[in-house]
Amino acid sequence: MNAIVAHGGGPTSVINASLAGLLAEARVCEIFSKVYGARFGIRGILDESFTELLTQDQRLIDAIGNSPGSALGSSRFKLSDEDHGRVLEIFKKHDIRCIFYTGGNGSMGTALRISRDARSLGYDLQVIGIPKTIDNDLSVTDHTPGYPSTAHFFAVAAREIGEDNRSLPPPITVLEVLGRNAGWVTAATALGRTREDDGPHLIYLPERPVSLDNIAADVEGVYRRLGRVLIAVCEGQLDKTGAPFGADVDRAESQTHRLASNLGHTVARLISAKLNLRARAEKPGLFGRCCGPLTSELDRREAHECGRAAIRAAVEGQAGVMIAIRRHSNAPYQASTFLTPLETVACKERLFPSEWINEAGNDVTNDFLAYARPLIPQLKGYSHL
Amino acid sequence: MNAIVAHGGGPTSVINASLAGLLAEARVCEIFSKVYGARFGIRGILDESFTELLTQDQRLIDAIGNSPGSALGSSRFKLSDEDHGRVLEIFKKHDIRCIFYTGGNGSMGTALRISRDARSLGYDLQVIGIPKTIDNDLSVTDHTPGYPSTAHFFAVAAREIGEDNRSLPPPITVLEVLGRNAGWVTAATALGRTREDDGPHLIYLPERPVSLDNIAADVEGVYRRLGRVLIAVCEGQLDKTGAPFGADVDRAESQTHRLASNLGHTVARLISAKLNLRARAEKPGLFGRCCGPLTSELDRREAHECGRAAIRAAVEGQAGVMIAIRRHSNAPYQASTFLTPLETVACKERLFPSEWINEAGNDVTNDFLAYARPLIPQLKGYSHL
Repeated sequence: MNAIVAHGGGPTSVINASLAGLLAEARVCEIFSKVYGARFGIRGILDESFTELLTQDQRLIDAIGNSPGSALGSSRFKLSDEDHGRVLEIFKKHDIRCIFYTGGNGSMGTALRISRDARSLGYDLQVIGIPKTIDNDLSVTDHTPGYPSTAHFFAVAAREIGEDNRSLPPPITVLEVLGRNAGWVTAATALGRTREDDGPHLIYLPERPVSLDNIAADVEGVYRRLGRVLIAVCEGQLDKTGAPFGADVDRAESQTHRLASNLGHTVARLISAKLNLRARAEKPGLFGRCCGPLTSELDRREAHECGRAAIRAAVEGQAGVMIAIRRHSNAPYQASTFLTPLETVACKERLFPSEWINEAGNDVTNDFLAYARPLIPQLKGYSHL
Repeated sequence: MNAIVAHGGGPTSVINASLAGLLAEARVCEIFSKVYGARFGIRGILDESFTELLTQDQRLIDAIGNSPGSALGSSRFKLSDEDHGRVLEIFKKHDIRCIFYTGGNGSMGTALRISRDARSLGYDLQVIGIPKTIDNDLSVTDHTPGYPSTAHFFAVAAREIGEDNRSLPPPITVLEVLGRNAGWVTAATALGRTREDDGPHLIYLPERPVSLDNIAADVEGVYRRLGRVLIAVCEGQLDKTGAPFGADVDRAESQTHRLASNLGHTVARLISAKLNLRARAEKPGLFGRCCGPLTSELDRREAHECGRAAIRAAVEGQAGVMIAIRRHSNAPYQASTFLTPLETVACKERLFPSEWINEAGNDVTNDFLAYARPLIPQLKGYSHL
């Protein structure tokens, strides 16, 4: 039978590892005549822009498996009802009986809709989801491929900016972290700490809205103790009213030009004005989702394994499922894949657990550290006089 | 005799390697009774906040030599005339006959002033400068320790953001790069390219002021050809009038709060409005001057060697000089240190050579690539379908 692979949403450091794993297994299983790659996600399906993947040179596929970014190209395009009908027509035309859709909860929503449409039309189609998102906000799975590498990047960024800050302290540095509405990546900056006075000294997560007064009081406390404060804050941090933090300042601009917001900068400016202390913001940004040299090897292996598991699921005749990761133990770290129905993950946002946020709402708990630590290379602290 | 080491200006990934090299050689040469480290630069001298370094554990010094940031602490404090007098009094009090000042052209200006003050007072003092700046804007020396590591960081950042951009193209991405008034680091993003269509597609340097119309025309040309544009621009880019690019927009804010400017964001916003295309800005920021995992090993070795050379210069009785690097060949890369009078480097800014900027003012030449390539690890391109 013929199959197709598509990528949805933001690329990661290891989405290509899942593609390489999928192709490695597809070649062995021998049930596929063709495995098409959709160019630039769901748009590539609508445009019938496909690349045949089984005939690609194995060395190229191996090299792609070690490359960040999406070799197929991805998309954030949302399908209309009409588009959904077109997708199935195109599948019929190319006799595509299996789609592997790699993405986050939004992509799994699209996958579920395609699966239901096919069933209601009596078209035999196996829809299999492969998890992918740096935000780690997919339900059911222990974590998502892509998250460990970005968590590692921001833990390193927090450690290094902390060193810089210790050497030449501006009083306040705000580190803005990826993750949209979910605090998982921001929380991982805590892994950059190896001693008591290391930053980040304060960590705010969007799951726990916070007021400027709270932040300012927290900052003042740390500043009195250490003379420097490193604050990690998620790009999607909310204020006490549940609105984006500092939205009143940036709203007009972001609505007009749809540029990246600048939440860290806003937080720094507001704290600076309130405490009359110099503050600056750092925003390593999208570099954090595609930094090859800081990829977590465990992440790459697991992403590869998720791709292989997707083919095995197809061979078993599974449909309407997503590959998920189950953790068996932390020491040594052991995990395996399993299947979960698309209904359990589609459009569901798994936020950071409130029990892993400390009481003051400005740090994570040891339980989170125990969860996150096995996923990234162990960070060593630097030496000081 | 007693000596003191001080760090000036922004920390780098390898300023501690120079400190470790200096201490390794100081232990061997046996002419120093004490080598003090000034805590937080010139401020530490005024405050008599010293740490004795010769008695430190060698393993600690070795570990510090591999740590980014300044283990002594640094400062941007400017000495008043009165402070300069105080510095010499403090040196007399502690019988300090040699100062090793590690920094850029501003720090070398301070070093020169101290050297002259001592001579005019008849106080026997050897002032020896050790070069350090990520900006690479010191005269005489082929390049400065710190530059290769930051050049490497931003070349990797350009490559990775280019991969991300290729996977999920926003039409325009602006990468803001460190370097203040000098384009050396921004130029190094060109080393992130391995094939013809790789970004950065446009590189602007502050040494070549540019108008919004110029940029927009360049961007439109690349966009028509590739459908995506990655622009590298220095944080200190100037417009055609010689003013900071986009200063009219950000001036009020930056004067009030002294936050980091947001030039890349401004460029993105202006281009977006002009071409009616979506644009975003990325600013990896200070992470680029302290990223341990992306340190150039050549940079670390050379920084270490500059520290050793400083001690050898002291043993030879040199005074009023800075260690500099002379390149002998590119293939294989060979270089050695030599001495240059502080007068030749103090407060002199070595800008990016105009002959290494292409005619259109939007890229660097092959001569620059030949200069920069040996300084950083060779970057491999990623694989694509």
